[in-house]
Amino acid sequence: MIFCHSLYRQFYLAFALMLFFALPAQAQTFGAQSASLENGMQVVVIPNPRVPVVTHMVWYRVGASDEAPGASGMAHYFEHLMFKGTQKIAPGEMSKTVRRLGGNDNAFTGQDFTAYFQSIAKEHLPKLMEMEADRMANLAPPPEHFASEKNVVLEERRQRTENDPRNLFTEQMRSALFINHPYGTPVIGWMSEIKTYEWEDVKKFYDAWYAPNNAILIVSGDVTMEEVLPLAQKHYGPLSPKTLQERARTEIAPAIGKTHMVLQHPVIRQPAFQRIYVMPSHRMNKQDALALDVLTEAMSGGSTTRLYQSLVVNQKKATSVSMSYNSTALDYGTLWITATPAQDVTLEELENLIDAEIEKVLTEGMNEAEVKDAIQRLQDDAVFARDSVSGPAMIFGHALTTGSTIEDVENWPQDIAAVTLEQVNAAAKTYLDPQAPYLRPPVTGHLLPEVQE
Amino acid sequence: MIFCHSLYRQFYLAFALMLFFALPAQAQTFGAQSASLENGMQVVVIPNPRVPVVTHMVWYRVGASDEAPGASGMAHYFEHLMFKGTQKIAPGEMSKTVRRLGGNDNAFTGQDFTAYFQSIAKEHLPKLMEMEADRMANLAPPPEHFASEKNVVLEERRQRTENDPRNLFTEQMRSALFINHPYGTPVIGWMSEIKTYEWEDVKKFYDAWYAPNNAILIVSGDVTMEEVLPLAQKHYGPLSPKTLQERARTEIAPAIGKTHMVLQHPVIRQPAFQRIYVMPSHRMNKQDALALDVLTEAMSGGSTTRLYQSLVVNQKKATSVSMSYNSTALDYGTLWITATPAQDVTLEELENLIDAEIEKVLTEGMNEAEVKDAIQRLQDDAVFARDSVSGPAMIFGHALTTGSTIEDVENWPQDIAAVTLEQVNAAAKTYLDPQAPYLRPPVTGHLLPEVQE
Repeated sequence: MIFCHSLYRQFYLAFALMLFFALPAQAQTFGAQSASLENGMQVVVIPNPRVPVVTHMVWYRVGASDEAPGASGMAHYFEHLMFKGTQKIAPGEMSKTVRRLGGNDNAFTGQDFTAYFQSIAKEHLPKLMEMEADRMANLAPPPEHFASEKNVVLEERRQRTENDPRNLFTEQMRSALFINHPYGTPVIGWMSEIKTYEWEDVKKFYDAWYAPNNAILIVSGDVTMEEVLPLAQKHYGPLSPKTLQERARTEIAPAIGKTHMVLQHPVIRQPAFQRIYVMPSHRMNKQDALALDVLTEAMSGGSTTRLYQSLVVNQKKATSVSMSYNSTALDYGTLWITATPAQDVTLEELENLIDAEIEKVLTEGMNEAEVKDAIQRLQDDAVFARDSVSGPAMIFGHALTTGSTIEDVENWPQDIAAVTLEQVNAAAKTYLDPQAPYLRPPVTGHLLPEVQE
Repeated sequence: MIFCHSLYRQFYLAFALMLFFALPAQAQTFGAQSASLENGMQVVVIPNPRVPVVTHMVWYRVGASDEAPGASGMAHYFEHLMFKGTQKIAPGEMSKTVRRLGGNDNAFTGQDFTAYFQSIAKEHLPKLMEMEADRMANLAPPPEHFASEKNVVLEERRQRTENDPRNLFTEQMRSALFINHPYGTPVIGWMSEIKTYEWEDVKKFYDAWYAPNNAILIVSGDVTMEEVLPLAQKHYGPLSPKTLQERARTEIAPAIGKTHMVLQHPVIRQPAFQRIYVMPSHRMNKQDALALDVLTEAMSGGSTTRLYQSLVVNQKKATSVSMSYNSTALDYGTLWITATPAQDVTLEELENLIDAEIEKVLTEGMNEAEVKDAIQRLQDDAVFARDSVSGPAMIFGHALTTGSTIEDVENWPQDIAAVTLEQVNAAAKTYLDPQAPYLRPPVTGHLLPEVQE
């Protein structure tokens, strides 16, 4: 059985992560500690003595958006190769070892990061570090694996995207929004480009980005910094730092005018509405990102909030509606609105109703109770965030590779609590007004079943 | 007065060029002759003894699509800098000299090429070559010109694009079509990137692309190869060739689903419909490109053809309609359909009528007379193509920098004459069928006046 470190696992994780990151907690929520090795590798420990296992993660500050033009998907493909052996370890051997020791491992790639992780009983931490450090510096996949893994990735894209018109369409909406920005290129890459990777390009990518000073070690679970740091020093300390290039990113091209995309396809059984906005990320504008966190929770954080109440419960025009904001990105954040129309409601009608709800927020504003409840809900949920072992490690990895700090994560609950009604309403006006869009208007998509003739 | 070598002049020229290139002529239409200098510079002479002047052009095989990511507009900006002096000549001095000698000069940049040209009395050809060769190798704009020219370009973009919503919208339609391909990036570049050019980047661009073995000298008018070649050898021959990088281009991302863009803006007085398709270029598929030349001429080559007859004359639903195909590109060609609705006709209605005309071609085909007339018209027009001095030079430069050959240009009239009705109808089915789009569906745009409340 091939160990599954698929892109979809990655999406699931990124999603879980967003949820976690959207959850506040008390002061010093996670009690994370940070240190640095001399070679520049950051070490973060998140103690959680309630569980006997540890999660060991290494995050690299490189993702799909750092790829060279024409080499889309390289970061993800490279993540696959990291399981294909070093000078010391045979292809697949590291995963086998982890499983033999009772643990599990995986990896995922995003636009801004690549991460590798294992969950295992604490006593095996040294072995994990030994193997992880080894592949950071000594990766040597045999040529036949280099070639065959390309087919694995091509097949992955074929199954998950080419053969799923909904995913393909959503990918295209992102591309239509992120003009002149790498976020418009899918993490898995374009078919035509995956096919063309040469070993020299892969090697160049490895040499450029895989280095201790471009990595963050995160260990969560029943451990302390006092235990982790000497181990980290022993295994990762000897690795040499590299001169790193800047993570040069292009700016999204501003635009005017509306973009509307329609996919009518036999595979679609249920009409669906979706819209994507470009937004500031937490790194770009922390204060506005916090206000947007509260705004989206207040508008769409469950069945008691206004979008659901208005469209599903009162007007009965939709069977679902949701608004979600992702602020954890090195460059731009995104906000999605998705909805499913009730029987006999057209997507045009549903879209107009959603626009009317937005218009109402812009003219009348949210109210004090909605914002208070949203903050309260976020805080209630936060209690659960630290119960997980891997969850907090995910949150920190995601935050630290996208320009946020440990303090940003730890203080997020207090920062959220400090968001005011005025800030929420101002954020709505700045980012949701169709008459004055932020950077460029959103891209709207309608998915429709094939008409029966 | 600043000598005008603006981007808009360039568009005008490219347009004129398309017209010319769309015009066939007799066997050995232009009687062009080609030779090469030892340093790899191609020399093309197009004798035309009927006029006492010559057009001297140097075309470089580099354009906006060859720019590094984040440096959009560099090729065009660099074209401006070429007028800003060398080690021997002061900024603006070359243009002044040309005018003093009774000539005029200009330059333009496209996605695939950059070209410089002068028209002047024949006896001044040596002086032109001396100055043109000088700036090919010894460009040295003073730092203050480097900085101020950036503002000139920014202002150019501001006036022509940012302050003209129609142009901005058309630019966005191209971007929405050419996902993952440089043709989606405007030649003039994005504002945010023009601002960031550093002299080192400019120098790198010059060093990489400006070399005799990346240039084509074209001289048309009252000259012969016997006269031109020794002069070219004397002035351009001493320049050293360079090792050239590949013109690496990404592939357009295939797509499904329709993209529809709408711009409603006070500046728009008259509603307008426009649609852009990606097409094969002449280089990509010569036979289909020829068939598409005939198809577009047959459908929309004047007021007697079917689009105009049906929509404007018979149905009276439009006041204008046109279809234009541009095949002279190193990568993809494009086909635009534009139309203006008659009073009280909505753009939706007009779009449906245009789609119905296309559907009719797909199901019933064009007829023999339409194709025959189109070929005849193209041939009638062709007679005029060689009367111009600069026109033929434009055609050859455009063709040679986009992967076509001298023979392609010379034989174009015969090749067009050989296109059959079957080929025209097959091309329509391959490239205009909305159910089976070529590479990706077209992008449709509606321009609308602001509604009066």
